Amino acid sequence: MLARTLIERKRDGGRIAPAEWRALLAGYVDGTVPDYQMAALAMAVFFAGLDRDEVRALTAEMLASGAALDLRHLPVGRVDKHSTGGVGDKVSLVLAPLVAECGVAVPMMSGRGLGHTGGTLDKLEAIPGFRTRLPLPDVVRQLERLGCALFGQTEAIAPADRKLYALRDATATVESIPLIAASIMSKKLAEGLTGLVLDIKRGSGGFLPELDRGLELARIMIGLGADHGCPVVALLTAMDRPLGRACGNALEVEEAIMALRGEGPADLMRVTYALGAEMLVLGGAAADHDAARRRMDVSLSGGRAAARFQAIIEAQGGDPRVVDDPARLPQAAACELVTAARDGVVAQVEPRAIGRAVVALGGGRARMEDAVDPSVGVVVTARPGDLVRRGEPLATVFARDAEGIRMGTEALRQAIVLGDEADPPLPLISHRVTSAGVTRYPD
Amino acid sequence: MLARTLIERKRDGGRIAPAEWRALLAGYVDGTVPDYQMAALAMAVFFAGLDRDEVRALTAEMLASGAALDLRHLPVGRVDKHSTGGVGDKVSLVLAPLVAECGVAVPMMSGRGLGHTGGTLDKLEAIPGFRTRLPLPDVVRQLERLGCALFGQTEAIAPADRKLYALRDATATVESIPLIAASIMSKKLAEGLTGLVLDIKRGSGGFLPELDRGLELARIMIGLGADHGCPVVALLTAMDRPLGRACGNALEVEEAIMALRGEGPADLMRVTYALGAEMLVLGGAAADHDAARRRMDVSLSGGRAAARFQAIIEAQGGDPRVVDDPARLPQAAACELVTAARDGVVAQVEPRAIGRAVVALGGGRARMEDAVDPSVGVVVTARPGDLVRRGEPLATVFARDAEGIRMGTEALRQAIVLGDEADPPLPLISHRVTSAGVTRYPD
Repeated sequence: MLARTLIERKRDGGRIAPAEWRALLAGYVDGTVPDYQMAALAMAVFFAGLDRDEVRALTAEMLASGAALDLRHLPVGRVDKHSTGGVGDKVSLVLAPLVAECGVAVPMMSGRGLGHTGGTLDKLEAIPGFRTRLPLPDVVRQLERLGCALFGQTEAIAPADRKLYALRDATATVESIPLIAASIMSKKLAEGLTGLVLDIKRGSGGFLPELDRGLELARIMIGLGADHGCPVVALLTAMDRPLGRACGNALEVEEAIMALRGEGPADLMRVTYALGAEMLVLGGAAADHDAARRRMDVSLSGGRAAARFQAIIEAQGGDPRVVDDPARLPQAAACELVTAARDGVVAQVEPRAIGRAVVALGGGRARMEDAVDPSVGVVVTARPGDLVRRGEPLATVFARDAEGIRMGTEALRQAIVLGDEADPPLPLISHRVTSAGVTRYPD
Repeated sequence: MLARTLIERKRDGGRIAPAEWRALLAGYVDGTVPDYQMAALAMAVFFAGLDRDEVRALTAEMLASGAALDLRHLPVGRVDKHSTGGVGDKVSLVLAPLVAECGVAVPMMSGRGLGHTGGTLDKLEAIPGFRTRLPLPDVVRQLERLGCALFGQTEAIAPADRKLYALRDATATVESIPLIAASIMSKKLAEGLTGLVLDIKRGSGGFLPELDRGLELARIMIGLGADHGCPVVALLTAMDRPLGRACGNALEVEEAIMALRGEGPADLMRVTYALGAEMLVLGGAAADHDAARRRMDVSLSGGRAAARFQAIIEAQGGDPRVVDDPARLPQAAACELVTAARDGVVAQVEPRAIGRAVVALGGGRARMEDAVDPSVGVVVTARPGDLVRRGEPLATVFARDAEGIRMGTEALRQAIVLGDEADPPLPLISHRVTSAGVTRYPD
């Protein structure tokens, strides 16, 4: 009866008090509040929203439902990065070892890909032997030793969120900004952070394409961080085209390794540096962004960031030789160039279409239980605004067989739009949001 | 995956096609679509609505999920009445035997009380021995013999609606006009009717207090009836005060028996006649409302309607002597008058407060599994607009014990508001709605 009353109140635009959220989530975790009541509540929240106090209470209760890392004994700051997800977004793989090498601990809990976007855990598992399922004591030991651990949410972390997220996924209630914010922050706050950096994607390939919704998510999460003494900085970055060139798990690991040598695509390097600078400043390892950038330059050019990644791979059971020899990553059986069918300008590289093509090739999942083929994917070298001539290469498809090549080629021809002129793309990094407000990001 | 896609589409304001409703409901009945997905869909429908085709498809599929009465062999029309529910609404108990006596068959499937409103099945079961759980073949035989059967929805009738209604009740998704319309009509159309009359209550005690929402419900149900060749007429009646005087199961049966002798309270008689006239015309037993009224006059004053009720009670296992001797109905152990605390005008007799008082006395249920005490209730003789003097009786409480008397008295003092002037009450019957449109009902 309690749950029904609360659903009705939320449905009618009312407010659920902190103690009521507590009872609701406790009941949900212990099974006395059934899935169907939570599903109805989640849909009511989708429509009616949550106010500041509600999202705070929900986050706090989901966080309290599980364990948290205690990293206060580490001599350095602990800062993580969260991205709302995109196509070709392999930033975590570069950023985590780089920032750790620069002296900030990075306890990075990541997720899997679903739908058109990839997931860091899937990318890491393209490395032969890499284990992402780490018990929390192992995470702590690895952070002490290497300043970085790359792992997935276990049953121990925010179990209320874990259960609720699976339910939302099955009931089309994921796309609620306050529920997204509470879900992310209940997990991130369990990492025992001293700071958090958000990469909020905008544009057609993002989870929240509209700028105002991305800003709203940023503001809510910054507020939730402040509630728990964890400063949060958000950057809004472009996802109207893929980030970098590679889309597909092993292909992205290879591109990330290039980036750790300082040789990644310019857009990937720029986003990595921007997020890294925020992390180093938040973590107390650099006085300002300029100092942070100089420090990252040194780590990359000296090969130390790549070596740190190698050490992390080895610690988590993976084959560290992939860093020096990316050919050891799973290789697709077939590959083929996709070329321009006409002279023109690249008007669009549609990230959702690219992401869906990777899923169709077997490199992503339509459902959580699907297996992923790490070897397949696409590398898109054409960028919006590029002038191309008929017959010039635009992209390469990596597939399991001829049928995959055919399908991938067809999908890329749809995704890479050639025209007579291109709309200006979104600025790669457009806004910076902190508890002090929103500012335009300098070009 | 199908269900999730449909939930998402409805959530975003889209339309679910007839074949998709079929698949959804088939899956829900056989368990492959889980409760939590239906709960999320129901909440999405609460917010996003259903269009004409959707509510038609939903109704048709819920109807088709179960059995239907085949009454085509009856030589007379078959007409039922449905009320959206109110406080003191014992019209069904009077109307069913009266209309049957006048030559129209009444296969009346009713529900139980929940919340502040009563239910016809609970009222009937106040008659010692009365069985409301009739197998469908018994319903048919009784209709052949007595022209009337009073029974509850069984597992055989619209099981998809049955399952969905229980879910909606637990998830605060009952109050959706298209879902209400589909639920009612899927059951009513299973009765094999040639006509249906709706009593849609408006005012503070009604399920849909606002006139426009009542009219919307009427229009949708009239359309659904037309889809299935069943003409529907709706009257909008007042529920800003209780109907009649008695509120409580045995007390209402007693008042209904009085009405079957033509001696019921004026408002009860007037609503009964108005609905009865529609039923007799729809059922082909009267050429127009005047003829119908004359026919009902004869049946009541000659005692034949009361005798028909007696025969129905006997056929369904109840004690038929209650009709001649209502003292055989369960009697409350304690009763007490509630008197006016001041001189003044009865400004309000708040039906929800009266209904909740009956539930608190044990005469209704807060949850579906609660047992009901048939003996308790209140009889409110004060009507809005009455002039009263301090100490004059307003109502009587019937309770199990002194604590019940105390509580009931207190509740009535809140519900019966004395003031210096009364707002004009709603017209008892305000509108008549048919497929031709809405007209004001003549005073």
